[in-house]
Amino acid sequence: MEEKYDFGLVGLGVMGRNFILNVADNGFSAYGHDLDPEKVAALKEEGGHEAKVNASTSIKTFVQSLKQPRKIMLLVPAGKIVDSVIESLLPHIDRGDIIIDGGNSFFTDTDRREAYLHDKAINFFGAGVSGGAKGARLGPSIMPGGSKSAYQHIKPIFEAVSAKYKGEPCVAYLGPKSSGNYVKMVHNGIEYGLMQLTSEVYDLLKKAGDYSNEELHTTYSKWNEGRLQSFLVEITSKIFVQKDELNLSKLGLLDQISDRAKQKGTGKWTSQNAMDLGIPVPSIDIAVSMREISSLKDERVKADKLYDRPKVELLDKEELAKMAEEALYFSFIITYAQGLHQLADASREYNYNLDIATIAKIWRAGCIIRAGLLADITEAFEADKDLPNLLLSSHFVDKVKSTVGSARKLVAHAAENGIPLPGLSNSLTYFDAYTSSRLPLNLIQAQRDFFGSHTYERLDKEGIFHTEWE
Amino acid sequence: MEEKYDFGLVGLGVMGRNFILNVADNGFSAYGHDLDPEKVAALKEEGGHEAKVNASTSIKTFVQSLKQPRKIMLLVPAGKIVDSVIESLLPHIDRGDIIIDGGNSFFTDTDRREAYLHDKAINFFGAGVSGGAKGARLGPSIMPGGSKSAYQHIKPIFEAVSAKYKGEPCVAYLGPKSSGNYVKMVHNGIEYGLMQLTSEVYDLLKKAGDYSNEELHTTYSKWNEGRLQSFLVEITSKIFVQKDELNLSKLGLLDQISDRAKQKGTGKWTSQNAMDLGIPVPSIDIAVSMREISSLKDERVKADKLYDRPKVELLDKEELAKMAEEALYFSFIITYAQGLHQLADASREYNYNLDIATIAKIWRAGCIIRAGLLADITEAFEADKDLPNLLLSSHFVDKVKSTVGSARKLVAHAAENGIPLPGLSNSLTYFDAYTSSRLPLNLIQAQRDFFGSHTYERLDKEGIFHTEWE
Repeated sequence: MEEKYDFGLVGLGVMGRNFILNVADNGFSAYGHDLDPEKVAALKEEGGHEAKVNASTSIKTFVQSLKQPRKIMLLVPAGKIVDSVIESLLPHIDRGDIIIDGGNSFFTDTDRREAYLHDKAINFFGAGVSGGAKGARLGPSIMPGGSKSAYQHIKPIFEAVSAKYKGEPCVAYLGPKSSGNYVKMVHNGIEYGLMQLTSEVYDLLKKAGDYSNEELHTTYSKWNEGRLQSFLVEITSKIFVQKDELNLSKLGLLDQISDRAKQKGTGKWTSQNAMDLGIPVPSIDIAVSMREISSLKDERVKADKLYDRPKVELLDKEELAKMAEEALYFSFIITYAQGLHQLADASREYNYNLDIATIAKIWRAGCIIRAGLLADITEAFEADKDLPNLLLSSHFVDKVKSTVGSARKLVAHAAENGIPLPGLSNSLTYFDAYTSSRLPLNLIQAQRDFFGSHTYERLDKEGIFHTEWE
Repeated sequence: MEEKYDFGLVGLGVMGRNFILNVADNGFSAYGHDLDPEKVAALKEEGGHEAKVNASTSIKTFVQSLKQPRKIMLLVPAGKIVDSVIESLLPHIDRGDIIIDGGNSFFTDTDRREAYLHDKAINFFGAGVSGGAKGARLGPSIMPGGSKSAYQHIKPIFEAVSAKYKGEPCVAYLGPKSSGNYVKMVHNGIEYGLMQLTSEVYDLLKKAGDYSNEELHTTYSKWNEGRLQSFLVEITSKIFVQKDELNLSKLGLLDQISDRAKQKGTGKWTSQNAMDLGIPVPSIDIAVSMREISSLKDERVKADKLYDRPKVELLDKEELAKMAEEALYFSFIITYAQGLHQLADASREYNYNLDIATIAKIWRAGCIIRAGLLADITEAFEADKDLPNLLLSSHFVDKVKSTVGSARKLVAHAAENGIPLPGLSNSLTYFDAYTSSRLPLNLIQAQRDFFGSHTYERLDKEGIFHTEWE
């Protein structure tokens, strides 16, 4: 009888192929499945020895080739296709087998699938995977949620293939049910926020500092060596000097890329679900809005012709870069703070029992939002696992205090000069509101009671009150 | 045989009782139903002559007392109770009868109910009603959606009871299915935005101008006589000088009201659905976020102790009031622009076939967001019914151009001085982004292609491109 394989993977697109090769590189044999014979052939060719990597277009052959309990990961597009792959597996698999959805499935879909498969004694995991194609090949951050006991079977493989931060694997059991998908969703929401911030600061440096792409490259590269060290700042520094392969202009590639930004929904889900929880994440919300505004290109072109823009007052290049670095660091902190606040609340609401320090830890390498900052965030939550918000951590007070001043100056300068810094200004107003023991929303309560008799509470007396106004 | 009644109403709370008395005042006989005998008795007493206003706790008696086709309005809390009232009516009503849900039902619930009742040949309307308790009594704005032919039966009553703007009734048939509830939802989203703006400008005048409540009253009253004339500015001016009935302090009532603001969900729905449509409404999103931040009072109190606040540089009182009036006018325009943009898009998405000018018209009186500005908005959409966004209307270019400068100055001043003006700054960054033919989101597309091979478009060439970065 032939030797069976350690790990199975359905969906041999770029991510799937890379993930399976990563598994094989780390000493586990892996078997792939895809309905497309070309993808199957491509994997077999790239995989080398058949005893380590194999693949088939037959789901039956695929399932029969795996060791029990079978560990079957799906890397297919989120949505109905996940359900149909599960249905196609069911006639062939056995009780105790494990299915792992590695896509960006919406968390309530994961809960539904988990309950459905639980009844059939199949273990189902939603495991967010971040790091893009390269991460899948060389070591992603993996965010699995599901049955704790079944996790023991996939743990050795996931720990082997994941990214490492100072030797520690960037994967951990996060919690039951859809917790893994939920954490990945918020990861992506934070990613939206950070991407918006890096892009608007690029705009600011160009408009208020007359920075060339070459200078932007130097500036972001330098930032990436300091406390802003992060995957997104790093790739941004490279993007500024990417040559234009089509050679259509003397400019670099970046200047020829359309400013209509696309989105695949995880940022939007983060914002929408934060609203259901009642947790404010305005730095993420505005990143979603900005992608929407960007896509309204025809309207923007028309509007641009109707309105004047203030002539921009140029700032000293070095002074501007210094302030921008501080403001970016400040707003990165605020964006992580909002996302982690949402996770802490979701953990209570959905009984995920998340450990935020563990999440920060597995984000330190491999994923798109990996950043030096996450080591500090890990420490803050290790020191106080029930920390409601990063802004309340003694680890962060000085970091924030020392950088918020530059955020103030740049938001002010941008407002006066017509440069949109929506992510930065939302991070600043969030900070100013969150740190205000008194807000003017007493007026909103008064208005609601005035027109709708919605009642109000008082500062000086317990109870619910209503006034006959006027 | 007894004379039957023109109009039936289920749910005799404040809104229901007031609405029925309004119907009776306008020459139609009305019959109420509530399971609570006290509410039935109260209405009968207040209603005067039994031939004009009557009520019963019996649903059967209620239904049998109505002229056919019966016109039965529900003013009950949104949610399951609407379904159970419909079920309780079904055994007694006949084909061709009309049920009107006057609550803030979520629009997909209305679509579900409409389809369910359509199969039984019952006409179902979702009709948003705005104006609070007083509006219900003296003339609300009514936003009905449903069957166009059945609307003829309710039109005379709704036109009689609705608010009037220069003699024109603030009600009109808006469109099929859930269009009425959808329009009311967005009305409330705009309401959230305007309330946030009036409240943060109050904060600004206090902190940057040392305004007393008395001075705030004078200022808002004066504003209400000009282009800011609106229900919300008017009631706000009154709120500033409302006496504290409990007399617990020498301060006015407003200063004793808790700043934890509540919400009932329609603002959140507006933001969440705008994200589904891909329409940016950041002035509404941030109003939802601010209610959430306000409710995190305990965290805010802790955070306030950890961070310093800049010492506020006081501005000249008159100059500040002038700028604040301009900035408020500017941001009101932006908020309406966003909400109406969402309605125009929803109309296409859900086949509502909405006429935005008609909607602006019926908002000119009766509803919470009524404002002088709505007469201008009506004109703008009458001039161009396919106007994608108010900012593109020649009716608005000068109004915006002449006021945005003050918004810039105040956002800048607030940012530097630690006063949160999130609604105003989101309105400004929205304006600056919407009127930019180029945005820096080319960088976001580059990042997405870099880490996820998501591809991008170019400015100089048609097609979809991918780069092997570095």
